[in-house]
Amino acid sequence: MLKKIAVFEENDFGEQSFKNFLVHESPYMKVINFNFKAGQELPIHAHEIEGQLSIVVLEGQGRFLGDDGKEMPAGPGDVLISDISEPHGIRAESDLRVLVTIAPPI
Amino acid sequence: MLKKIAVFEENDFGEQSFKNFLVHESPYMKVINFNFKAGQELPIHAHEIEGQLSIVVLEGQGRFLGDDGKEMPAGPGDVLISDISEPHGIRAESDLRVLVTIAPPI
Repeated sequence: MLKKIAVFEENDFGEQSFKNFLVHESPYMKVINFNFKAGQELPIHAHEIEGQLSIVVLEGQGRFLGDDGKEMPAGPGDVLISDISEPHGIRAESDLRVLVTIAPPI
Repeated sequence: MLKKIAVFEENDFGEQSFKNFLVHESPYMKVINFNFKAGQELPIHAHEIEGQLSIVVLEGQGRFLGDDGKEMPAGPGDVLISDISEPHGIRAESDLRVLVTIAPPI
């Protein structure tokens, strides 16, 4: 079955903290949308689990975060690939919408 | 290791046919960017393989395609989820950039 999710309509922004929305979950992948206001972030974290994730910037500007203060610009069309076990995060510099895909799902 | 790919810089458009670019391939997922000019399409297809895929619209407008003439609008932030074995495709109505994620990779 085909399933369409209009992520820009399903999730909005929060003044207190980022807002997340579960787009899809199956035995194959988990897809989550995170929306951040400028200054909000998904803090650097990691899980000792096998697998990888992608973070895709749908809209806005920010910085991808790694350990040891590593930062990379994150703009529309930018994709970050990370092992789930590798420290990763993202910080918004404007209203920022991203899509995280985790495979296999955790 | 964190790997960043600036998809909008890595791939452009072709007058003769869509252009695809392999963003990432691992035992966990395969990520491919497709760019279409208006009128170009990824024809409806399916593979008899276990797994699922997502098609994420990064930029532009088009239509997600299914069997029996099924169509759904495809715009920025829209995500289509499909089994790999389910007929799926996409057609561009403007310059259109999408990201396809396949898990497990085929």
